[in-house]
Amino acid sequence: MAGTRKAHIVGIGESEFTRWGGIMDRSQFQVTAEAILAAVGDAGLSTDDVDGLASFSNDGNEGPLMQAALGIPDLRWSSMVWGGGGGGSCGAVAQACAAVESGQAETVVVYRGLCQGQGRRFGQAGLSRTHASFIYPFGLFAPSQMLALMVQRFFHETGIDPAAMAEVALSFRANANRNPRAIMHGRTLSREQYFAGRWIAEPFRLFDCCLESDGAAAVVITTAERARDVKSQPVEILAAAHGSGPGWSTGPLGAQNMPDSDYASTNNRRIAQELYAKAGVSPDDIDVAQIYDHFSGLILMALEDFGFCGRGESGDFVSDGHIRWDGGRLPLNTSGGQLSEAYVHGVNLINEGVRQLRGQSTSQVKDAQTCLVTGGLGVAPTSAIILGTV
Amino acid sequence: MAGTRKAHIVGIGESEFTRWGGIMDRSQFQVTAEAILAAVGDAGLSTDDVDGLASFSNDGNEGPLMQAALGIPDLRWSSMVWGGGGGGSCGAVAQACAAVESGQAETVVVYRGLCQGQGRRFGQAGLSRTHASFIYPFGLFAPSQMLALMVQRFFHETGIDPAAMAEVALSFRANANRNPRAIMHGRTLSREQYFAGRWIAEPFRLFDCCLESDGAAAVVITTAERARDVKSQPVEILAAAHGSGPGWSTGPLGAQNMPDSDYASTNNRRIAQELYAKAGVSPDDIDVAQIYDHFSGLILMALEDFGFCGRGESGDFVSDGHIRWDGGRLPLNTSGGQLSEAYVHGVNLINEGVRQLRGQSTSQVKDAQTCLVTGGLGVAPTSAIILGTV
Repeated sequence: MAGTRKAHIVGIGESEFTRWGGIMDRSQFQVTAEAILAAVGDAGLSTDDVDGLASFSNDGNEGPLMQAALGIPDLRWSSMVWGGGGGGSCGAVAQACAAVESGQAETVVVYRGLCQGQGRRFGQAGLSRTHASFIYPFGLFAPSQMLALMVQRFFHETGIDPAAMAEVALSFRANANRNPRAIMHGRTLSREQYFAGRWIAEPFRLFDCCLESDGAAAVVITTAERARDVKSQPVEILAAAHGSGPGWSTGPLGAQNMPDSDYASTNNRRIAQELYAKAGVSPDDIDVAQIYDHFSGLILMALEDFGFCGRGESGDFVSDGHIRWDGGRLPLNTSGGQLSEAYVHGVNLINEGVRQLRGQSTSQVKDAQTCLVTGGLGVAPTSAIILGTV
Repeated sequence: MAGTRKAHIVGIGESEFTRWGGIMDRSQFQVTAEAILAAVGDAGLSTDDVDGLASFSNDGNEGPLMQAALGIPDLRWSSMVWGGGGGGSCGAVAQACAAVESGQAETVVVYRGLCQGQGRRFGQAGLSRTHASFIYPFGLFAPSQMLALMVQRFFHETGIDPAAMAEVALSFRANANRNPRAIMHGRTLSREQYFAGRWIAEPFRLFDCCLESDGAAAVVITTAERARDVKSQPVEILAAAHGSGPGWSTGPLGAQNMPDSDYASTNNRRIAQELYAKAGVSPDDIDVAQIYDHFSGLILMALEDFGFCGRGESGDFVSDGHIRWDGGRLPLNTSGGQLSEAYVHGVNLINEGVRQLRGQSTSQVKDAQTCLVTGGLGVAPTSAIILGTV
């Protein structure tokens, strides 16, 4: 859709980011509300202007309760994308796009708050899902163990050396070292330290895994027409897509009728095709990307699924420096990502995408015009957006 | 939105409806899947054609799990409207409209399964919500008690005789007596029996309260273009609206800054205005309506909020026979509704709206062209749609 109702991002907001347990003086719900207020304020709007709320991954910070807390007078849209692991972060953005483009709402906030210190640490056993009884007996208690299976298969199929994951962890940490808001801002990471990291679930070592953190992030989305009047610099959502398939269902562990070649993929191949077609761009047009980094190995798989390199070429792609901020063909996760900034189920990655197109990143890519942002990888559903400068 | 992508309902489906505990041979999840398959079959489609799923009220029958169970190859949209009590039934339809009209999906199934025999009976205490600790101390354990407060206030403000509620219960029961699928099909209800019903929560007697039942229902929504090719008779969704406000939040018990005059309302006044404006119709154009009947008293309030009569006139409106199937100005809940057909959080009301416009109701309104259907009343969010013949 073009025209006056085309969806734009006009505000971004975040709470402070800390390691898990770093925010104990107020609830996750309150921290989430703060991030929403920051995003609304960034756009120069007030909660009176908000008429839609969207989140994802079975968010317990429910929209109608958030409406009460924030005093939003009139809510015309509220939606949540099911599924785990931040797979719906950009799916919630897609829903906001549908809301404003169909005229059902004018201004929608997409948000996510996640304070692992107040709930459970995702790195520990404790998944409570319908299918837990089918996977616990096989030793699959935490996401690291489940997704390790896919990444092992990926390395087996492609012949890529798992050592390539080091470059992902090191690049993102270097970006975090330039970003004062990143939890790992003051902590450098050397190649030696990376390889000295203990095994979490082979092939993942410690620094291949995202942070367990406390924080919240939010994004304000409105129409092209309203975007002209905000105080911030708007960014256009060129395309948004989400979903799951073909063959996927509740993630690869629940796969049915999945082509064998798709098992070691991120569940994004269809989404990538749809996204590029909608946006009218190709991978070559993407200047910078924020790819969901719960585990470094899936970044390699995503680089292939989103067409930045061919099958089996992602190891060389990263090892040749192409994802580095300084001179890389496709700088990735320029805020430090979820490996080194904070793990907010991907909404912080959307915010960094907006900062890049506003020219405000602490690892700014020169003349960045187009940015890919993805939701969770190897889960169901997954999602992605392409952002462009206005 | 007009044109080839305008949303239409092309299929409806249901499981059998029983009293709570009547379906114990298979899970609520399975029963829900059966309703979806029935709806898809009604349209002459297969699950290969479905690329979206939407539900509401924190549905535990999660979309990605449903995708796996049904073997839906490629899911491009999945969403859930937060909130309790079926308030989002038509909100889920609104989301499906946004999905297909914005091009994010082609064919979306809206569904809800609710087998109270497999979980908890809603008429009993057992609400487990964030605000439970604020309302339990005041004796508000079940929806009947909470909504009784609003309806008492409504009668106090308007001077309407609570005896008017009898006409709602009796009319809907008469409709159910013509509908073999209704749980109360074989059971007539006399005025004497109604008034002999025990108090549940004053002003509600037994027959003012919806059934506690087992069942599931589903609706298939697609574009105008695709609707031309289905085997069923399509119905156009002239307008859909949902949300909450002004002043509402988590229902009236969480109200903040609500105008005093809005307390005894259904949280639908803004939605009604938006709905009629979008559809380009007025209350006079509505031939038949399916209004969410968790409790009879809220039907009176809804008749006023949706503009079928003035403030304080709903008692006379129903007592004058205007909601009766045989000769009423606005026949209501022609399948028997949730008081006498089944309580499926309102999706069965949507199905009955479709049947009326197809000419297939067991209490068919002659030449019905336009039908209002609402989601839950006096909750947050609420929702409504207007359906029209093609």
